Amino acid sequence: MNNCQLPLSDVQSRQDHRRLDIDKVGVKNIRYPIVVKDRSVGSQSTTARINMYVNLPHQFKGTHMSRFLEVLAENQRAISIENLPKLLKEVKQRLDAEEAHIELDFPYFITKKAPVSGVEALMDYQVHFSGVMRGNAYQLTLTVEVPVTSLCPCSKEISAYGAHNQRSHVKVSVQFSQFVWIEEVVDLVERNASCELFTILKRPDEKFVTEKAYDNPKFVEDMVRDLADELTHDPRISWFAVESENFESIHNHSAYAFIEGGQRS
Amino acid sequence: MNNCQLPLSDVQSRQDHRRLDIDKVGVKNIRYPIVVKDRSVGSQSTTARINMYVNLPHQFKGTHMSRFLEVLAENQRAISIENLPKLLKEVKQRLDAEEAHIELDFPYFITKKAPVSGVEALMDYQVHFSGVMRGNAYQLTLTVEVPVTSLCPCSKEISAYGAHNQRSHVKVSVQFSQFVWIEEVVDLVERNASCELFTILKRPDEKFVTEKAYDNPKFVEDMVRDLADELTHDPRISWFAVESENFESIHNHSAYAFIEGGQRS
Amino acid sequence: MNNCQLPLSDVQSRQDHRRLDIDKVGVKNIRYPIVVKDRSVGSQSTTARINMYVNLPHQFKGTHMSRFLEVLAENQRAISIENLPKLLKEVKQRLDAEEAHIELDFPYFITKKAPVSGVEALMDYQVHFSGVMRGNAYQLTLTVEVPVTSLCPCSKEISAYGAHNQRSHVKVSVQFSQFVWIEEVVDLVERNASCELFTILKRPDEKFVTEKAYDNPKFVEDMVRDLADELTHDPRISWFAVESENFESIHNHSAYAFIEGGQRS
Amino acid sequence: MNNCQLPLSDVQSRQDHRRLDIDKVGVKNIRYPIVVKDRSVGSQSTTARINMYVNLPHQFKGTHMSRFLEVLAENQRAISIENLPKLLKEVKQRLDAEEAHIELDFPYFITKKAPVSGVEALMDYQVHFSGVMRGNAYQLTLTVEVPVTSLCPCSKEISAYGAHNQRSHVKVSVQFSQFVWIEEVVDLVERNASCELFTILKRPDEKFVTEKAYDNPKFVEDMVRDLADELTHDPRISWFAVESENFESIHNHSAYAFIEGGQRS
Repeated sequence: MNNCQLPLSDVQSRQDHRRLDIDKVGVKNIRYPIVVKDRSVGSQSTTARINMYVNLPHQFKGTHMSRFLEVLAENQRAISIENLPKLLKEVKQRLDAEEAHIELDFPYFITKKAPVSGVEALMDYQVHFSGVMRGNAYQLTLTVEVPVTSLCPCSKEISAYGAHNQRSHVKVSVQFSQFVWIEEVVDLVERNASCELFTILKRPDEKFVTEKAYDNPKFVEDMVRDLADELTHDPRISWFAVESENFESIHNHSAYAFIEGGQRS
Repeated sequence: MNNCQLPLSDVQSRQDHRRLDIDKVGVKNIRYPIVVKDRSVGSQSTTARINMYVNLPHQFKGTHMSRFLEVLAENQRAISIENLPKLLKEVKQRLDAEEAHIELDFPYFITKKAPVSGVEALMDYQVHFSGVMRGNAYQLTLTVEVPVTSLCPCSKEISAYGAHNQRSHVKVSVQFSQFVWIEEVVDLVERNASCELFTILKRPDEKFVTEKAYDNPKFVEDMVRDLADELTHDPRISWFAVESENFESIHNHSAYAFIEGGQRS
Repeated sequence: MNNCQLPLSDVQSRQDHRRLDIDKVGVKNIRYPIVVKDRSVGSQSTTARINMYVNLPHQFKGTHMSRFLEVLAENQRAISIENLPKLLKEVKQRLDAEEAHIELDFPYFITKKAPVSGVEALMDYQVHFSGVMRGNAYQLTLTVEVPVTSLCPCSKEISAYGAHNQRSHVKVSVQFSQFVWIEEVVDLVERNASCELFTILKRPDEKFVTEKAYDNPKFVEDMVRDLADELTHDPRISWFAVESENFESIHNHSAYAFIEGGQRS
Repeated sequence: MNNCQLPLSDVQSRQDHRRLDIDKVGVKNIRYPIVVKDRSVGSQSTTARINMYVNLPHQFKGTHMSRFLEVLAENQRAISIENLPKLLKEVKQRLDAEEAHIELDFPYFITKKAPVSGVEALMDYQVHFSGVMRGNAYQLTLTVEVPVTSLCPCSKEISAYGAHNQRSHVKVSVQFSQFVWIEEVVDLVERNASCELFTILKRPDEKFVTEKAYDNPKFVEDMVRDLADELTHDPRISWFAVESENFESIHNHSAYAFIEGGQRS
């Protein structure tokens, strides 16, 4: 157990002669518990898949991978949109790099009330933070995946009764100049869908969501256009990408649409 | 390159002293192209995930894993329900075992005609063969996963208009005394669903399937009961298990039901 | 919004005439934050995938799915091995059933110290609770998936230097008469592997684990036999199943072994 | 069944007033059998996941989704790098679009000989074609994912014996001015890895690959640099991206590196 005293070679710090910079090198697919800031109750505990990278100038042979994990272990209790820049600065410093990247992918839970009965339960949304610090320039991309109901306008119009509907996944990515809450993106998508989803629905709620979806038919094209329209007019948003994948109830494949807008940095 | 002549130790053939038989030992998650027998055109090419195991009596230290792959490579062009027993006999013999298992999981394609326009296209179904040979006793379990439309009877009845519907995955597993085609299991499920799925639907077809689903509302409980009822009365079937998972269009979770019947061997 | 006052039909409570009991009916794939009991710090927050089912006697048409979610919402803060029986009793009562099932699948985190440097970090293990209450008889099955290093004894013995090694997933399921901690199952697997895994390893640690794995070569057969041997001799364990899947570093498929022992209830 | 004669509304062809072009709209996640061109035996049958999209100018409300599937059904027997442009032209024409996209993701099989014994078996590689036609300008991106063995130089150097090694997934994407075979990309990656993988290895082969990997230690950084170096000097390649994910045998997460080079179109 006295290996610590051995003068072990530091292979990674040696010089490299291929003259090739590496864009990203680091650790991927770390599963870690995190605490995320939450609009309604302050913060929530969840679990994330995390990737952390730095750039590697051509003269260095390798990266010291364990240092990423050390920074992560030290910051575990305070992962939030606000402290990602601080965390990325620590990564840059500890790994002696000009550029640092972090990606976090986690379920985020919001309490929702059923529309008629008012019964409360948690709904889950998949959220992705992607932060990069280049020199002192920082950029965050926030992505929220919101599951909703979509009901087909064509099916409704041509059929004597009924209309095919299904679960859809709507993904919105944004870069912004002023803070945007996860909850705001969820609200944006839910109010533009044929209907939003709920974890608990009693019978009067089920009647309500069935009729609401039938009253609001939307093509996959309508969904992304209505979202793009709102995002274009939000002065805080500098770039966005929206997509919807509808898991068609009449096919074994999906309908899909995508719009990108603004200037990506 | 003359390693073949070296007297390399055969570690696996040594004696083991823990006195513990191993139920299954072998290779898992091999991806391989296979040719499967097909009711309408004779055979079809597809790609499978394959597992192959044998039992290992307590006195042997290890199995010769490469032999599974040799049997697979030699039989690649003729994987079918009919020749699984022959293949399992080869595995038993080559690995000197009393018991051999094979599991194949693959997409299977069937040409379907749209209900009104008659336009043809392929639909994919996930199929699983699980064969075991114990001594000379052979048993096959055939599983077919059929995606369908389910439409909720409660939503239809309590709502002034519309009804929530969604894609459901219905899985039927059977053991039989007389041959059953994959196509027969697909037909069984599709005719018991609110509506079947199609790859291509023109507008008159879309009107047809929308109205058909609305005319045939089914709870997840109805689906598995109607299937169990038919399977119970089929004299060829000695055991079955049916399950349905409905990817609810109004929730972010599934509704699920399961019934097992007959005598499993 | 006065739908609550409407006399909405209760379709699910109607009589069914097919005379077929349903083994399991309920909700599947709910994502929910939970708090789990933890040996070292009392409890930990994590996120689970949850399934909840009851049996349904033949005379009832359907189940009231929303009631599962209500029980879950009310018990969210106290999910633990100890209170599963209480939760299942509530499900049975609320759904007027004779049998209730719950399945929880979640990442569980344990602080580990690197073997030489002593640096601490969290490691993740996938854990599965499966509880069933039939009348008043309760049975829990605990499954823990432990990732480890396996090093091949044959490769070591026949090669002039080196030996192929890889990450393996070892899954242990147990039923017990006296309480067993998740941490005990993790310890059991880790001390029987060629080497255990760590989240942070400094260079002296990396030297340690490399040499330890080389000193402890194990076939996939050895791994499951050594675990089965220990489990057979633990008087608390009434039934077990152990399996190991080695993601071979020299093949694009896995080596696999499985042993079951004791009496399953 | 006389619905065909009904004058069903063509909702999709109506005018849209939101003045928002859609970048991509179409069908996603279609599973289909395809025949792919193969360097050694002419062609091979496999199964693909397919996405097909077009752009949609702002004045149109919706796309006619069924037409993508019609083009696919008509071309099923002749999917190859060569005829993707023809297929994309058909999509553009049938959907009256300026831009068309197709993405195919499929396992591709190559016969490999074990290095010493010469035993033959198929190895699987995941391949992705991404083709886009904008007006008459066509661009293909070919991506090949090659599983290999990586052996850690640091672990080898600091340890008295042994060295940790593992399966790694190396992904190479290229755009080219002159045809590049899938097999060429596979060769490139396999000859730059610590060792390549095989489906069947007899004992002398296992000795060979164990020693070869030990003789060729490579960091994840070395792997992507050596590949980037070769790709930079291939005059046919106008753009490339290479990444390697090493499923570390000593950690429960991956080491990762990424380099991009040339000019993407």
